[in-house]
Amino acid sequence: MRDDSGVLKNDGTINHRKLGRLISTIEHDRQRATELLASMVSDYPSIVIGITGPPGAGKSSLTDGLIVEYRKAGKRVAVIAVDPSSPFSGGAILGDRIRMSSHNTDPEVFIRSMGSRGSLGGLAPASMDVVSLLRNFNFDIIIIETVGVGQSEIDVMKAADTVLLVLVPGMGDDVQALKAGIMEIADIFVVNKADKDGRERLLAELQMIIELNRRQLDWIPPIVETVATERKGVASLVEQMSQRADFVKKNRDTIWRPRVESQIMQMMQEKTGSDILAIFKGHSIFNDWIERILSGELNLYQVLQKIESHLKISWRDENE
Amino acid sequence: MRDDSGVLKNDGTINHRKLGRLISTIEHDRQRATELLASMVSDYPSIVIGITGPPGAGKSSLTDGLIVEYRKAGKRVAVIAVDPSSPFSGGAILGDRIRMSSHNTDPEVFIRSMGSRGSLGGLAPASMDVVSLLRNFNFDIIIIETVGVGQSEIDVMKAADTVLLVLVPGMGDDVQALKAGIMEIADIFVVNKADKDGRERLLAELQMIIELNRRQLDWIPPIVETVATERKGVASLVEQMSQRADFVKKNRDTIWRPRVESQIMQMMQEKTGSDILAIFKGHSIFNDWIERILSGELNLYQVLQKIESHLKISWRDENE
Repeated sequence: MRDDSGVLKNDGTINHRKLGRLISTIEHDRQRATELLASMVSDYPSIVIGITGPPGAGKSSLTDGLIVEYRKAGKRVAVIAVDPSSPFSGGAILGDRIRMSSHNTDPEVFIRSMGSRGSLGGLAPASMDVVSLLRNFNFDIIIIETVGVGQSEIDVMKAADTVLLVLVPGMGDDVQALKAGIMEIADIFVVNKADKDGRERLLAELQMIIELNRRQLDWIPPIVETVATERKGVASLVEQMSQRADFVKKNRDTIWRPRVESQIMQMMQEKTGSDILAIFKGHSIFNDWIERILSGELNLYQVLQKIESHLKISWRDENE
Repeated sequence: MRDDSGVLKNDGTINHRKLGRLISTIEHDRQRATELLASMVSDYPSIVIGITGPPGAGKSSLTDGLIVEYRKAGKRVAVIAVDPSSPFSGGAILGDRIRMSSHNTDPEVFIRSMGSRGSLGGLAPASMDVVSLLRNFNFDIIIIETVGVGQSEIDVMKAADTVLLVLVPGMGDDVQALKAGIMEIADIFVVNKADKDGRERLLAELQMIIELNRRQLDWIPPIVETVATERKGVASLVEQMSQRADFVKKNRDTIWRPRVESQIMQMMQEKTGSDILAIFKGHSIFNDWIERILSGELNLYQVLQKIESHLKISWRDENE
């Protein structure tokens, strides 16, 4: 851990206000974010949990239940509530819902919302940055909660060691629609509101999906039933997650290598994007081309070909 | 229009199978897509309509109703059903739902699904490409339907002249959650299933949102009530869309300039991304860095700084 920021108080607890401000800084200034995070030594063994699923599945109640369990065990817990459809950061809807619960006064529980507006260059790299920052401040458990199951959410989930896909009985067509992408992201299936009608059908569907994919899987996702509002099944979920954490530790290379590669690619793409923008701003020809597209004289792809012939990307070995 | 592909039959109608194959080509081969689309002269005045909204709002029924109306007027109609959570392209869930209706045998109605897997580099540029291609084949109406209201969907909607946000009475918290991003994308609010309880409350909420934003708006989004399954209100929706189309024509520069700029940026970012990937694949040092990240010796941001110091992006003026 490295801390020049005063986030860590003298008694070892977290100054929430200062941590919040530090997060705002890295959300709004990518260059500063890279510098700051590069200076940190993040070898703290945080466990990063992603919670996703359709609206109404009870993700916030489940998050709340998990916080209670982990606090019982004396863990320091952070929650990042990511809402790609919200432009707000800091105090948005999702975070509020969790914050309103009993953890508000607990100094060892930090809750932060992230919307799409605050994060230049996409939520996925921004949430990755925030996870790295939280790791530096020795959070044992970092929970990333999202609102939906779209592509943005799937990208965000790539920062997690373990992804819980939360479903509820009686979703019918919605589960059908989710099916396709389900195995790609879920490490543990959580059937929440397991006291509702349609439980058996949902369990059978999930078991079928797992069976169909069993041979390609290194990790067979367990199915855990919960009634999060009554705290039922949460302890058993924590137990399953601890098994998953062991698996991730043993298979770190297989699981994380492709993610690290794609994270670097994504971050580089973002960086070159702003470099290109700077180049364009300095050339009036770019403006001329836009005019010609708007007047119908050129199409987008013709301009793209022109730009490609001007732009050169190269690798300098000298300072290697 | 330019057509070396045999998509346009001798009688002037569309060969669906050949058009489908052409779309697959541009989905899977970005380089080919750029070449192909650059060779096309897309000055046909297609109207591009985006339809978005939460699951269960009746988007497919509405699309179906719109197809009926536009066919009555003799228009050639294409539907791109975009599902960011589906890995499938070509014949996925959304498209099937629409296809199953009566338009299956109509040669002037073309329906195509797009999932996330088929489209390298994101759904937004890919659907933009498909729109450009369809414009080249003189489709009067191009409808882009999405499943949800996440960031991917908002990005996809940037290809549309007019975006319909479809909502239903009684959504309660969901509308609350949508509120933040609502004005950003909706050109017309469609209150579907307007015979259901909660209609007045939803209308009042939408009116309030419009009032709050009125001063910053050039175009005040109308609210249209429909019962799509019974075809009620669809004709009136078509009328509102024609007014919107006139507005877009008059304000083409204001509306499209920022979009064209961001489309070019996005496409360039994607292109440089693959160039960088090629550079990385040719340098073993990249692999070494990944190893050092996995072993904990370096963090992601330290490697990012190293890469930035090696990579050079420049602009060559000589062939201007």
